[in-house]
Amino acid sequence: MTDRPKTPLLDRIAAPSDMKALSDRELRQLADELRAETISAVSVTGGHLGAGLGVVELTVAIHAVFDTPRDKLIWDVGHQCYPHKILTGRRDRIRTLRTEGGLSGFTKRSESPYDPFGAAHSSTSISAALGFAAARDLGGDPGDAIAVIGDGSMSAGMAFEAMNNAGHLKTRLFVILNDNEMSIAPPVGALSSYLSRLYAEAPFQDFKAAAKSAVSFLPEPFQEGARRAKEMLKGMAVGGTLFEELGFNYIGPIDGHDLDQLLPVLRTARARATGPTLIHVLTKKGKGYAPAEAARDRGHATGKFDVLTGVQAKAVSNAPAYTKVFAQGLIAEAERDEKIVAVTAAMPDGTGLNLFADRFPRRCFDVGIAEQHAVTFSAGLAAGGLRPFCAIYSTFLQRGYDQVVHDVAIQRLPVRFAIDRAGLVGADGATHAGSFDVAFLANLPGIVVMAAADEADLMHMVATAAAYDEGPIAFRYPRGEGVGCDMPARGTPLTIGKGRVILEGGRAAILSFGTRLSEVLKAAESLAQRGLAPTVIDARFAKPLDRDLILHAARHHEALITVEEGAVGGFGSHVAQLLADEGVFDTGLKFRSMVLPDIFIDQANPDRMYQIAGMDAAQIEAKVLSTLGVAMVGRRA
Amino acid sequence: MTDRPKTPLLDRIAAPSDMKALSDRELRQLADELRAETISAVSVTGGHLGAGLGVVELTVAIHAVFDTPRDKLIWDVGHQCYPHKILTGRRDRIRTLRTEGGLSGFTKRSESPYDPFGAAHSSTSISAALGFAAARDLGGDPGDAIAVIGDGSMSAGMAFEAMNNAGHLKTRLFVILNDNEMSIAPPVGALSSYLSRLYAEAPFQDFKAAAKSAVSFLPEPFQEGARRAKEMLKGMAVGGTLFEELGFNYIGPIDGHDLDQLLPVLRTARARATGPTLIHVLTKKGKGYAPAEAARDRGHATGKFDVLTGVQAKAVSNAPAYTKVFAQGLIAEAERDEKIVAVTAAMPDGTGLNLFADRFPRRCFDVGIAEQHAVTFSAGLAAGGLRPFCAIYSTFLQRGYDQVVHDVAIQRLPVRFAIDRAGLVGADGATHAGSFDVAFLANLPGIVVMAAADEADLMHMVATAAAYDEGPIAFRYPRGEGVGCDMPARGTPLTIGKGRVILEGGRAAILSFGTRLSEVLKAAESLAQRGLAPTVIDARFAKPLDRDLILHAARHHEALITVEEGAVGGFGSHVAQLLADEGVFDTGLKFRSMVLPDIFIDQANPDRMYQIAGMDAAQIEAKVLSTLGVAMVGRRA
Repeated sequence: MTDRPKTPLLDRIAAPSDMKALSDRELRQLADELRAETISAVSVTGGHLGAGLGVVELTVAIHAVFDTPRDKLIWDVGHQCYPHKILTGRRDRIRTLRTEGGLSGFTKRSESPYDPFGAAHSSTSISAALGFAAARDLGGDPGDAIAVIGDGSMSAGMAFEAMNNAGHLKTRLFVILNDNEMSIAPPVGALSSYLSRLYAEAPFQDFKAAAKSAVSFLPEPFQEGARRAKEMLKGMAVGGTLFEELGFNYIGPIDGHDLDQLLPVLRTARARATGPTLIHVLTKKGKGYAPAEAARDRGHATGKFDVLTGVQAKAVSNAPAYTKVFAQGLIAEAERDEKIVAVTAAMPDGTGLNLFADRFPRRCFDVGIAEQHAVTFSAGLAAGGLRPFCAIYSTFLQRGYDQVVHDVAIQRLPVRFAIDRAGLVGADGATHAGSFDVAFLANLPGIVVMAAADEADLMHMVATAAAYDEGPIAFRYPRGEGVGCDMPARGTPLTIGKGRVILEGGRAAILSFGTRLSEVLKAAESLAQRGLAPTVIDARFAKPLDRDLILHAARHHEALITVEEGAVGGFGSHVAQLLADEGVFDTGLKFRSMVLPDIFIDQANPDRMYQIAGMDAAQIEAKVLSTLGVAMVGRRA
Repeated sequence: MTDRPKTPLLDRIAAPSDMKALSDRELRQLADELRAETISAVSVTGGHLGAGLGVVELTVAIHAVFDTPRDKLIWDVGHQCYPHKILTGRRDRIRTLRTEGGLSGFTKRSESPYDPFGAAHSSTSISAALGFAAARDLGGDPGDAIAVIGDGSMSAGMAFEAMNNAGHLKTRLFVILNDNEMSIAPPVGALSSYLSRLYAEAPFQDFKAAAKSAVSFLPEPFQEGARRAKEMLKGMAVGGTLFEELGFNYIGPIDGHDLDQLLPVLRTARARATGPTLIHVLTKKGKGYAPAEAARDRGHATGKFDVLTGVQAKAVSNAPAYTKVFAQGLIAEAERDEKIVAVTAAMPDGTGLNLFADRFPRRCFDVGIAEQHAVTFSAGLAAGGLRPFCAIYSTFLQRGYDQVVHDVAIQRLPVRFAIDRAGLVGADGATHAGSFDVAFLANLPGIVVMAAADEADLMHMVATAAAYDEGPIAFRYPRGEGVGCDMPARGTPLTIGKGRVILEGGRAAILSFGTRLSEVLKAAESLAQRGLAPTVIDARFAKPLDRDLILHAARHHEALITVEEGAVGGFGSHVAQLLADEGVFDTGLKFRSMVLPDIFIDQANPDRMYQIAGMDAAQIEAKVLSTLGVAMVGRRA
């Protein structure tokens, strides 16, 4: 506690209602204390820092002006919510952020009534807020709906769809555009340029102009002078024409770190707005903490750090091992094949494609937060004769699913999907788990689906994808570090649909798909000590299956057990279908399929998450033993 | 042939290259002949008429001006492509449209080099065209990329994502906005209003102005007077500010039925454009055929008809039986529960929600072509205390998959998904098949997934969903007519996770999920005649499974066979997982899972498609016999 900042005012805030008694001057002090507390908390937990620091004043202003939780405040993506959590009754647990049993790093309905709609993927907030507003209009929960959305998130089609619908419905709704010119990477796209122009040509309105702007769109009776103010502002600002054309009232841009602008603008808007209203707020990611402001990513995600120096105890790598291996493998292939290009949806660092872009700037496309477009754009690149690698996290590929089906698979276009963050991902929790990709991809006709068992195999799979022009091909790999195996300088293309036998054993065969292989091998070692050394196979392919290998294993073992880092419907289900089709079950086979359990698993460290999932070495061993009908007594490992 | 129109000029066009020799006057005549031929062809085949008639002149102009197939012409959605197919070497097969072995009703890569990118779902064309353009810039296929996209399609987020990216990349690309103020239903949303304003305030530019508009954005050296023309046009038109703000050069609006405008504008644009260019063309759906122009849907989809009178031989119903049953069931529930609301993504007629909207206009939301938003908006409605039914075809729900996972399932919000067009759909072919929904939904924790076996059960499932507030619930049902069973006035809520035994039999149990039940019952009857009467179970639920019922059937029969209208990974896979978990395979069970085969099945009539899929009564019977090891000789049925 000695390191904690002095926060006399913040200490009196148990809930936002306690803020109503504060003067504007006190609210400014509260914001300062909230910033200090946020920095202190994240220094202990690590996590998303920059985004939260950028909205400290906005958080204070919204809770001071609106009546949360009756009014529904929805933070887009949700990773900027730490100050919000501190103000809404969760300060006592703020130093448990992103840890097992602790607070989520995102907004979460089950955590607090102040989180009316959880978010962890971007660009959902306007849709949700419009849902609340429409429900209210029909007798549902009362109150206002306020979406706070970043400029990066605004580039996603989903946000546009919601704006388009809101402009049509014309109901009262607040969208606060938090424009910090940064998502995780600097945002790209024409919308971003447009916002920059708004900013460049009208950098700041002073308080009076901002306040007048806020009233200028109001219905009759007009305030004295408001019409004139509006005319004046028209000359002054570029205006939010784009938003106005979509049916929104537009206010801004205003300084999102100046409560003297935020408070009157929000108060006026709350008092008088009738339709959808967009308030354009300019903020600075990492604001008020020098080490974050100075960082390339504005302190987007950080490990634990020393508050005074900003030095991180252990740096959070932007390119974890598998990610970096993918990037290096792809660069190695691209050096030999100029047709290879890469596509990312606003995640150049997270996917490792920043390294590819450094080497081949013209051959790397960051399309913004736009997974639907990313997939079909890749399909167009493939149809145009190139060899695109479309690198999207498993969980975000869900955003482009129809495009994978309709534009890639049906047309059998050779798009290479590099699926990072497959399986459970740790601190980001359930919303970021890559649980479903094998199930939703492997049933598409004509696609190839691989999973890397280790980082060397990932190299081979990159090479396999590069060499494969017959149709779509996907390879998945997890968040985090590899197993430390020897690495080839360059991958060697694998034979499509062929697995590999790792160990030859007796009664049981374990068929592993993906990086659970290392746990399978631990289980195998322990089983060997019991005299039950199993056969271990790395399947490599969920589609096409290695039919001969799998059927041979099924016919020569008493038990066959599949293991994968995914939900039911994926690899194990395809194996079951094969075994059923071939009549292998008819005469008895002790078949089991170890898949992620039928729950959304909250954040914890990845090893612990797989333990919860029932998929660590001990549990794999136990599954083999119980399947074989061997008692668990005398366990050795 | 006697009824066919006289088309002397069209008869000379074997490929678009033959059009190069024609004068503008001859091109006008060609357009007239092309329209007559299109009407004649569709009168024989049925299909999408209105959209094609709206782009006859545009089709002629593009092929006359651009160098297809070197230049890549991409028709968004593709259902307006019949005139294009007639001009591009497929006239001899145009009267096979949408039939088995015939031409697809959409553009299709495998059909012609003039279809560089197939489309049947909306809003993909700009992404694909940008992919071609970017590939060209990096040494891929040469030529221009031209996307033709309707105003309805433009409302989808994906189109916005692509525009945003195109404005950023700044490469040469043509987007022709085909603005007919109609998608299938009249489009909704703020963008649509915006386009209407452009039209209302500048209804038509004359030829000279249009031509000048086309040159006005061009780089130096400016044409004499071009700058002045630009200034003039600024005063004249509202301008395409929204598009210009997204980085596009904007030309328009121009009359899309006037070749005297289209030809010079396209020629100038082709000769001089450097960056992304949007050409705003106003057309009329159904143009030039009075019965189509007069129809409410402008002849969107039609059966075979008499050319002279426009009378359809057999009307294509906009509310096929299951669709109508859903609507009636929902209305019955909504009359008793004012919290029930409905959401559609631009398909009020197709989903039957037009009937709901007639009865409850304020409680029905058409959000436009915007499935991502539709799902999360529904989640917001549910969080706001209402009971939303989100009605989306199976194939289009793929567009909102991440939102189902992230916004609905993880938050366990009670959104009711009404999934029409589940299974194979007939003339629309592979792109519209609802093959994957059970696989991609049933592995989501906490969701309920049902399939109706007949129209009475659909009523019950609507009632079940209405009564279920615990979390997300989905029910699927096919395109087309029901089985003609007795209908209740209102549905009765089913017990969640309970199936029903239809027939008690002997050695084999058939576990049916969905409307294959009628074929299963035919197979059962035939089997009974062989003395092999099977048990038949209607599973009703893929999630949660009726564990007791399924395990009992597995343990008391020699064979268990699942049947479903979906791909592997769905119902049968969940059953297999249960059987494996419970050790049922250990001692032998003749388990089979009949799923859609691992191919994309082209258009044919639905019965024939299921025959190709191996899932008609005879094939189900054969599967039971082969599983039991009974020879097929002496087949009775």
